[in-house]
Amino acid sequence: MNQDDLKSVFCRVESLQKQVVENLARLVEIPSIAGHTEACRTAAAVTAEFCKDAGFSVEVWEGPGAPALFAEITAPDNSPTVLFYGHYDVQPVEPLEAWVTPPFKPTIRDDALFGRGAGDNKGQFICHIAAVKALKETVGCPVGVKLLIEGEEEIGSPHLEDLVTTNAGRLSCDVVITADGPYHADGHPLIIFGVRGLLFLDATISGAPQDLHSGSSGGIVPAPTHELVSALASMWNKDGSVAIPGFYDDIVRPTFTEGSLAAQLPYPNWTEEEASVDGTLPPPWTRLMFEPNLNIAGLASGYSGPGVKTVIPRHARAKIDVRLVVNQDPHKVYASLRRFLEQRGVEASLLAAVPPSWTPIDTPLAVPVQRAIEASWGHSPLLQPRLGGTTPDYVFTRTLSVPSLLVPYAPADMHHHAPNERIPLEALHRGVRTTAAICVELSNLSPRLAGTTKG
Amino acid sequence: MNQDDLKSVFCRVESLQKQVVENLARLVEIPSIAGHTEACRTAAAVTAEFCKDAGFSVEVWEGPGAPALFAEITAPDNSPTVLFYGHYDVQPVEPLEAWVTPPFKPTIRDDALFGRGAGDNKGQFICHIAAVKALKETVGCPVGVKLLIEGEEEIGSPHLEDLVTTNAGRLSCDVVITADGPYHADGHPLIIFGVRGLLFLDATISGAPQDLHSGSSGGIVPAPTHELVSALASMWNKDGSVAIPGFYDDIVRPTFTEGSLAAQLPYPNWTEEEASVDGTLPPPWTRLMFEPNLNIAGLASGYSGPGVKTVIPRHARAKIDVRLVVNQDPHKVYASLRRFLEQRGVEASLLAAVPPSWTPIDTPLAVPVQRAIEASWGHSPLLQPRLGGTTPDYVFTRTLSVPSLLVPYAPADMHHHAPNERIPLEALHRGVRTTAAICVELSNLSPRLAGTTKG
Repeated sequence: MNQDDLKSVFCRVESLQKQVVENLARLVEIPSIAGHTEACRTAAAVTAEFCKDAGFSVEVWEGPGAPALFAEITAPDNSPTVLFYGHYDVQPVEPLEAWVTPPFKPTIRDDALFGRGAGDNKGQFICHIAAVKALKETVGCPVGVKLLIEGEEEIGSPHLEDLVTTNAGRLSCDVVITADGPYHADGHPLIIFGVRGLLFLDATISGAPQDLHSGSSGGIVPAPTHELVSALASMWNKDGSVAIPGFYDDIVRPTFTEGSLAAQLPYPNWTEEEASVDGTLPPPWTRLMFEPNLNIAGLASGYSGPGVKTVIPRHARAKIDVRLVVNQDPHKVYASLRRFLEQRGVEASLLAAVPPSWTPIDTPLAVPVQRAIEASWGHSPLLQPRLGGTTPDYVFTRTLSVPSLLVPYAPADMHHHAPNERIPLEALHRGVRTTAAICVELSNLSPRLAGTTKG
Repeated sequence: MNQDDLKSVFCRVESLQKQVVENLARLVEIPSIAGHTEACRTAAAVTAEFCKDAGFSVEVWEGPGAPALFAEITAPDNSPTVLFYGHYDVQPVEPLEAWVTPPFKPTIRDDALFGRGAGDNKGQFICHIAAVKALKETVGCPVGVKLLIEGEEEIGSPHLEDLVTTNAGRLSCDVVITADGPYHADGHPLIIFGVRGLLFLDATISGAPQDLHSGSSGGIVPAPTHELVSALASMWNKDGSVAIPGFYDDIVRPTFTEGSLAAQLPYPNWTEEEASVDGTLPPPWTRLMFEPNLNIAGLASGYSGPGVKTVIPRHARAKIDVRLVVNQDPHKVYASLRRFLEQRGVEASLLAAVPPSWTPIDTPLAVPVQRAIEASWGHSPLLQPRLGGTTPDYVFTRTLSVPSLLVPYAPADMHHHAPNERIPLEALHRGVRTTAAICVELSNLSPRLAGTTKG
């Protein structure tokens, strides 16, 4: 397929733009907050309708959680298949009073569509659907396309691994592409080759059955606050490294190319001081992509209101999150961390364990994606070896053993997870063009490079 | 004055009992929660009425805070004067749903009067007033009696020191007696010869202007939670002693008698393990009375609700309280503690600084009080060198330079500061008898032992 074909597809994308915005508005109107069963079901059904209109055959996969949508267009002979992953569930909307227009009343102003889910992720996966429609209605879809759109991403995708394992055959493909999160804050498009994993746990120390008077019992009975801060502080060495035995054991260092790419990435809005760029630590991007991180996300104990209350709190609690890098096993790291905390009297309970995920930078599948971005944006993407955050990308790279790339379509600072979430109409438009171009470029990949797809 | 005189006083106390309960019910009905201006004013006025009825001349001292009540009966020639201290303000009543009967609807059941302030402190200072009424109406009041009943004790008596300094002449006396808190949990009456002091501060570390994503910024920008727990944990040495430089500098060790008395006190309901009675630490009472204690009374940061939220919180906060012992200066200890915290990036702000207070165990003024308790209870009081908690006792021992004793009239576990606060009618009755006996016994003290009262 050639550049003229792509031009005619882009033309159709242009004329489809109004409908894309209307469709997105219909989706944003559905309050499909993760866990809200009825609205999630509706969001899946409406998305299925859009997929059918674009020419997909569609299945709604029911399971123990919110339904997942699977849509498919069979690959022409010898063509590769791309699986686009997205999610229709959204974050809660609180604080409501901070929204200029209601979160589930999609509104266009300042050339953007405002509403919960506009960018995360309804406004991104809808680009994949619309692009296939434009292709089908012009030159034909030159590759196999599969869509997996789930409804539990915002609560950690608890059923996704099972779903992917069970349906591994149906989901077989040459590459997975996810449009989620933002592209670089300075406006550069990105191809991201992996994500850090996540551990999240509650850590608690309990003392007496009720708060005690610090004058009558202080220094006599155990003080959970003192014990907790001591245990938490001892998780780090003086140089800032993590003191949990075995914490760094399995880490695989970045390749030369990954390291070089990381070193060239522009900083986001960290100050030099924040980023500790004084030479005592590795450069910030290196730390953010290739090193695990241990963080206390919350602390709660006793009285924290105004004024004086002199108690020995009966509980002291912390929320702890760990970001994991290549080759770290979340359950192994959790076992070390739990043992470390238990030795210090802290009871740990696991809330999330997501393995890290990565795709080799030199995967041939990245080349057509890079070309497609150049065709749609007018300039090259930055190649980012890893996302510092976490997505369930491992279900593709590990469970399906397929390369997986993140290609975000939303600009930075569009208030994902926050009040007044939005997506610029231009970003939406460019997302559709980029997806179409990705399909066209992938169709030019030789079958040998594409891999083992059976269509 | 002799034992027959005391018998006739006790007779009148008996016949007054119904009125004492009625008066207490009238007082408990007034919702004089500290800071509630109008109700506090009413509580002071009603208390003044009771004092007038008992034969006192009464003044209401207005000032920047809640009014204080000063009542006086001049001493007969060569008789000592006793000042009874109490407070009419009460704690908040939340959680309301936990009260069996409403907190400000005094109710008698199980031979006790239920309601906020029944024991703390309306039901204790009312004993002093009633006892003087019984004395005046029988044998005459044999000593000078002064009452100081303030309305800000539950918020740390912020104006008491100024008030006592300004009115030092009017408040001159030979001994101060406070009926507050409970007597020993095993039922023993107590004479307590001092209290520990208190420091209370807020400690905060701030980071970015908003919570940050732990995946995108963890390990790059400073983490206030990590910094706070490290700073807090470093306040203690490994052996549990406090690591703040100078923390123990000015402490004066207990006298031989104080130490011996402490060693003989029965334990309250600590387990042996809690009380670390394995010989590695000084005995619990010794620690509680004669050693300072550092406690974290509250922790708050980031997200502490159910589930997962991976943030780098923008603030991390702690509430810290320190109990101080003989000769420690709260402002000097605060300066050390603040310097220590500031060196670790923590901002401290002082919420309360109350000096410790003590009266020599061998004060001759304790002898008549001990005799009075024996006459009223039928057995001897335990002599407790110090209260582990804090009261504004220093305004008497330091500002007025007068010996001061705590003689609690309320049993333990009567839910002071909690729902369903109460006082047994028998405790109320015994409090009146004990006060009357104290006055009679004090009148037998030789003027040389009593001190320098001018009446």
